[in-house]
Amino acid sequence: MQLLEERIIKDGKVFSGNVLKVDSFLNHQIDVELLDKMGEEIKNLFNGVNITKVLTIEASGIGVGCMVANHFKCPLLFAKKSKTLNIKGDVYTSKVESFTHQCTYDIIVSKDFLKENDTVLIVDDFLAKGNALIGLIDIVNQAGAKLAGCAIAIEKGYQGGGDKLRAQGVRVESMAIIDEMDDTTGNIVFRK
Amino acid sequence: MQLLEERIIKDGKVFSGNVLKVDSFLNHQIDVELLDKMGEEIKNLFNGVNITKVLTIEASGIGVGCMVANHFKCPLLFAKKSKTLNIKGDVYTSKVESFTHQCTYDIIVSKDFLKENDTVLIVDDFLAKGNALIGLIDIVNQAGAKLAGCAIAIEKGYQGGGDKLRAQGVRVESMAIIDEMDDTTGNIVFRK
Repeated sequence: MQLLEERIIKDGKVFSGNVLKVDSFLNHQIDVELLDKMGEEIKNLFNGVNITKVLTIEASGIGVGCMVANHFKCPLLFAKKSKTLNIKGDVYTSKVESFTHQCTYDIIVSKDFLKENDTVLIVDDFLAKGNALIGLIDIVNQAGAKLAGCAIAIEKGYQGGGDKLRAQGVRVESMAIIDEMDDTTGNIVFRK
Repeated sequence: MQLLEERIIKDGKVFSGNVLKVDSFLNHQIDVELLDKMGEEIKNLFNGVNITKVLTIEASGIGVGCMVANHFKCPLLFAKKSKTLNIKGDVYTSKVESFTHQCTYDIIVSKDFLKENDTVLIVDDFLAKGNALIGLIDIVNQAGAKLAGCAIAIEKGYQGGGDKLRAQGVRVESMAIIDEMDDTTGNIVFRK
């Protein structure tokens, strides 16, 4: 998606350790209009698929998830990262290793909101090694629901998570795929 | 807002300890269409005010925040609850005591995204004792920005946080205010 690639070049900052800082428009301050246009694009890509739930993971997936679900006119369901007082009853859980936070955590989805007659689109802001997606796909499978695919804002192609999932037959649509990033020059190369 | 009150009566569940579970439409599964209508209502209430930033707090504020910011055509900024690898540089911080999680945590907003020429609308899903709002207002004040007011989905009126802020001259608009809740009967009384 050209608009997103242009925005990454304009406002994204590359740091050592494969860190791309896009917190001016994606995961701290959110450019809601940009997310809305991503939602429109993703709706077009999955046109004809009867998505009944958009599934994401807190916290930074919620913004993209909302704006995508708004185009599909279906609810957004977000996996929680820790058990709170307000989640009771039966839950699906899976384990996710976080690249950003350098830890492993549990993700939790209430069984009330994901059923075997659901067709699920998984949405997230970033895709690196694919650990969050693998956890969310695990939860979709536990529910016996159908996975339509995954829609991502920014995929770090050089970390291989997206291509690994594609090789397994999972449909992964990323609005921008970065194949190379250089923290000394700040140069970013997108996949054609 | 009648639509929200009806939805709370239909799908909300009252538990002991003043817990209202609305995770079927507000803070686990999100009814994006309902949030969009709240955004429209809030835009009407603050019509004529030139809001430049909507400010909320992760995680469950992000959904409402996005759908509100979408109507104001301005960015959403969400305060983070812990310092991550991806937030660098100068930040505003404040302390918040959580009613739901029974702990105190720091909230953090990058100084890059909140300036003294901003007019800020604070948005959140819940208002109980008002601790999250007090922390967010503190951050708006630290930035020297102008506070337009606070817009909330569900206010637990009987916990007094909203009225305390109103008494201090803060404009607080809640889409539903619950004045009484009974976990034995499930009965919910809304403020007229």
